[in-house]
Amino acid sequence: MAKVYLIGAGPGAADLLTLRAARLLARADVVLHDALIPPPILALATRATLVPVGKRCGVRSTAQHFINKRLIDAARCYDVVIRLKGGDPMLFGRAQEEIDALVKADVEVEVVPGVTAALGASAELGVSLTRRALSRSVVFATPRVGQNDAPSRWIESVFAADTAVLYMAWGQAPEIARALIEKGKAANTPVAIVEGASWESQTSNLLTLGRLAVSARVVLDPERPTIMCIGEVFREALENFSRAQFSGKTVRRCSAGNQ
Amino acid sequence: MAKVYLIGAGPGAADLLTLRAARLLARADVVLHDALIPPPILALATRATLVPVGKRCGVRSTAQHFINKRLIDAARCYDVVIRLKGGDPMLFGRAQEEIDALVKADVEVEVVPGVTAALGASAELGVSLTRRALSRSVVFATPRVGQNDAPSRWIESVFAADTAVLYMAWGQAPEIARALIEKGKAANTPVAIVEGASWESQTSNLLTLGRLAVSARVVLDPERPTIMCIGEVFREALENFSRAQFSGKTVRRCSAGNQ
Repeated sequence: MAKVYLIGAGPGAADLLTLRAARLLARADVVLHDALIPPPILALATRATLVPVGKRCGVRSTAQHFINKRLIDAARCYDVVIRLKGGDPMLFGRAQEEIDALVKADVEVEVVPGVTAALGASAELGVSLTRRALSRSVVFATPRVGQNDAPSRWIESVFAADTAVLYMAWGQAPEIARALIEKGKAANTPVAIVEGASWESQTSNLLTLGRLAVSARVVLDPERPTIMCIGEVFREALENFSRAQFSGKTVRRCSAGNQ
Repeated sequence: MAKVYLIGAGPGAADLLTLRAARLLARADVVLHDALIPPPILALATRATLVPVGKRCGVRSTAQHFINKRLIDAARCYDVVIRLKGGDPMLFGRAQEEIDALVKADVEVEVVPGVTAALGASAELGVSLTRRALSRSVVFATPRVGQNDAPSRWIESVFAADTAVLYMAWGQAPEIARALIEKGKAANTPVAIVEGASWESQTSNLLTLGRLAVSARVVLDPERPTIMCIGEVFREALENFSRAQFSGKTVRRCSAGNQ
């Protein structure tokens, strides 16, 4: 029976894949992949049948138990089965449910870690998530505002950490900002909203938590994953961004991306 | 003048480098690198002069301002200068000080993100850091017990998050465990101590926070980076580990590492 590889595709740029992931993709017989994996990465799986199983905020979603079943079925038919997830598979990817289902079905599993979107964004912005005397802790969280699912836990963790990166949060960005301010976070705390971290088309917006709180619902590109980065480490980037907007110039990006 | 690349070397295994990092290393004229970069990764910089500038818990440390100066000097003499850091450069790597010094000296900087040790460890253990209904937040922090540097901030962030991964903490592991229990963390909370995540020689120890609190100072290999992972997501791994120890068997690792 085959081995199933749970592989992190990284934040988006094809060359931010790991060497191990690239080598395994080239050997794959079948690749079950998330919705937002860029085509140049899928193109590395030259021999494979590509099966999209993405869950995208309710749109065209594939139920998790059905993904689990397809993985087990694929392991019975093929030698090299890959489950390809955006970023790192072990952060917000429901990997554990897939691992547990595979182990229960006696299928061997290997996990290949990847570069998570927060680190792709940090590199592109040229802003370190930690900083001497300013940030000794970084939390990655998925908030949900106004749901029953332990509503206060995420806010405690975001409030307590020096820097926070929120995944799958863009749909509720103003509500999240309001909840954080109500909890006591300073309204002038810098926020960086990064769409498509490391993609050719990456765009970043820097603003304050207070400004975000009074925004209309933020409309972002559903085809690119978006993260919200919050904390004083982004203060200088915010100031440069505001100055650049005022002077009509494009913000200088620290990184040149694919060069 | 040259460009300086701040590159994450990943958690240790040479094939967990990104494709971009590997390509740039092959082109490098000079590589200033941390102490714990494994030799197979340094060997990829076939053309380069290798300059160790590692800071290793006070041993053979190079002052940060001296590293900054060496980077600027190198940029004046070479075309492709690489500053190679373990894991991801923007997490606990003092990257911001290097970026700021280079930008101030008008040197162009590009940051190449990497797989951080927490994700390398999570992949090897086969334990997702987040999990539906159990963990919606993960904090990465560097604690210091009994120092003036905002002693309560790290503990608040670790206490508030569902899962915590502590970097550069192994020297104070029992003190950290005691501080967390005093703060109110359950003594039976699972802890995974992972040395050399993703290395051939990776070793993992699973125990409870209470057991760690009463340990003598933990003696670990100073040649391998060590992280402490804390949270209920490690409960099953802890139980399997305890059973395996009892029966005298080696713990089954979910991942086969380099295969």
